[in-house]
Amino acid sequence: MLVLRARGGARAAGDSRLTGFGALAGGGLAWCEEGEVVDLSGLGDVFARPTLNELLAAGRSAWQGAIAAARSHDGPRVPEREARLRLPFEVADYVDFYSSLEHATNLGRMFRPDQEPLLPNWRWLPVAYHGRAGSVVVSETDVLRPRGQRKSPDEDAPTFGPSRRLDFELELGFVVGVPTQLGEQVPVEAFADHVFGVVLVNDWSARDIQAWEYVPLGPNLGKSFQTSISAWVTPLALLEGACVEAPPQEPPPLPHLAGGRDWGLDLALGVELNGETVSTGNARTLYWTLPQQLAHATSNGAPLRTGDLMASGTISGSEPGSEGSMIELFRGERFLEDGDEVVLRGRAANGVELGEVRGRVLPSHPG
Amino acid sequence: MLVLRARGGARAAGDSRLTGFGALAGGGLAWCEEGEVVDLSGLGDVFARPTLNELLAAGRSAWQGAIAAARSHDGPRVPEREARLRLPFEVADYVDFYSSLEHATNLGRMFRPDQEPLLPNWRWLPVAYHGRAGSVVVSETDVLRPRGQRKSPDEDAPTFGPSRRLDFELELGFVVGVPTQLGEQVPVEAFADHVFGVVLVNDWSARDIQAWEYVPLGPNLGKSFQTSISAWVTPLALLEGACVEAPPQEPPPLPHLAGGRDWGLDLALGVELNGETVSTGNARTLYWTLPQQLAHATSNGAPLRTGDLMASGTISGSEPGSEGSMIELFRGERFLEDGDEVVLRGRAANGVELGEVRGRVLPSHPG
Repeated sequence: MLVLRARGGARAAGDSRLTGFGALAGGGLAWCEEGEVVDLSGLGDVFARPTLNELLAAGRSAWQGAIAAARSHDGPRVPEREARLRLPFEVADYVDFYSSLEHATNLGRMFRPDQEPLLPNWRWLPVAYHGRAGSVVVSETDVLRPRGQRKSPDEDAPTFGPSRRLDFELELGFVVGVPTQLGEQVPVEAFADHVFGVVLVNDWSARDIQAWEYVPLGPNLGKSFQTSISAWVTPLALLEGACVEAPPQEPPPLPHLAGGRDWGLDLALGVELNGETVSTGNARTLYWTLPQQLAHATSNGAPLRTGDLMASGTISGSEPGSEGSMIELFRGERFLEDGDEVVLRGRAANGVELGEVRGRVLPSHPG
Repeated sequence: MLVLRARGGARAAGDSRLTGFGALAGGGLAWCEEGEVVDLSGLGDVFARPTLNELLAAGRSAWQGAIAAARSHDGPRVPEREARLRLPFEVADYVDFYSSLEHATNLGRMFRPDQEPLLPNWRWLPVAYHGRAGSVVVSETDVLRPRGQRKSPDEDAPTFGPSRRLDFELELGFVVGVPTQLGEQVPVEAFADHVFGVVLVNDWSARDIQAWEYVPLGPNLGKSFQTSISAWVTPLALLEGACVEAPPQEPPPLPHLAGGRDWGLDLALGVELNGETVSTGNARTLYWTLPQQLAHATSNGAPLRTGDLMASGTISGSEPGSEGSMIELFRGERFLEDGDEVVLRGRAANGVELGEVRGRVLPSHPG
């Protein structure tokens, strides 16, 4: 199980295993390892840019070279918690999947209590929707309670006001580096040629707004107000030692989604709410693997762009306490209050730690 | 009614009323008016950029100045049909609404024959979803028939292959210029302070893929393979003379969506399929107005970025022959065949013509 680090607790130098690339608030890229952040801008070229995008586009052998260069670079360095970071890359499109069997089942029961929780397509394809790329923000950005239309079943008409059912969603996201052309499909096997790395994602959700708006075209305003990602992108290459077999799939996937079963990621996940651990799960429970998600998203010829962010959807396990959202954890009886702070964490089985995603709820603007 | 111009037909210089800004394939902006395209790059600054984005961000008084500068500029010029153009702006987020009452009713009947066609939220808010920004392309880009999962009701399991129900959708889109901050809401009255202009949009749709995938998170692969827009962006300022009262709304909109009723656009629309007119409608029939769409999209505090594209959804009227998609026009019995060419056209009541959207269907890649 994940050992969650208390915020601000004493820590010896070097006990953090957080590893990855970020973008410094003042410009230039940074590398984090062993509790220290190294300014890479002195390496020039892609390392002197304001975001990771140029490095993302450079491709797999350049990524390997960048890790080696970062590890050996003798640039200015600060302790991890003192680094000031910006959104690590410019987000092109943001796609949000729905790849956890347990989450889809739990949500289906709540949103459509009169139907089978899992809809007929769910086991045949990784269901997804496009989210709002322009409201993806970096960890430590506060989240303003959104306003919107809400209607409970016993009301005749909706009202407009602050969401009363604000939730978090614990997700794993991957970041596309190498683009494709219109009409091209990325096979499951080519995943690592296109994807640079992963981030943690908090897909904040206003459940009341979502429940009223989402038919028939899916979530929109209930999600689009903000999505938070970690300031650090963990290169895929560092997670190879954490790959495990994904859960069995029945029925067997159609040929274009076959394969990629060795891409379960043994990645312990945790959610802290006001400093208290409320959920611990693992990314290895995801039914649809990351390579299957990418293959599906491109199976119709949709092109990839550098900076595309694709997230797993909430990761919930089958054990009580492993659900990745409040609506599941507290059966719809508790949601986020103003002032609440949520922190998502992840640590791979090989010890590599992902950047945290931290966010605090601010009261809605008056209006 | 719209008089559709035959392709390649004889035309005297000056009889085109196409007016607007575009981006030249070779770089620099262009202005089209009276059948001629003027290269604006000699004006320097924002006019020498590869796309409209910098002009879009410059704001309303700069937009007025740009129109005046373009009209008086004595730059290199070519006949309208000889201009080589690129995608006029970098698309930030692409939002697709569902704002035609007739279209939503027609589609509801076809996709959910056992339910009320209009879902309970439809008259309370302009329903929308995010589309894929990275597959928005400029007019004259061919569309490759997408492949994907399809399952007809009488089949036990889906199969993967080329879409058999490829459709067009006739839409009007608006282009955001001036961005907003996280947490800010654009009131209905501030629409013209943020929106630069409009384009025609063909939201190509694979109805079989869409029907299988769209529950519960909305359309994704059935739409994401390609969306085509006109090469010319028509400034809002040129359409003021075409504004009319929008259709009545019942129930009355909630306060944040009240107003903007004077933003119906008397804009005759037409679709040609292989040179034959198959649909003629009018944007004035849209139930939700453009300012209401923008107010809704930002009502939760989601920020706008320069280059956000928001489209109306298919525009269908109540008269036979005014439906904006094949599935409505031909009751699901005819769809696009390989080699078919679709052209969308629009002309405002004040004579200003929008750029056409032309696209030809290519056969699916073998696979």
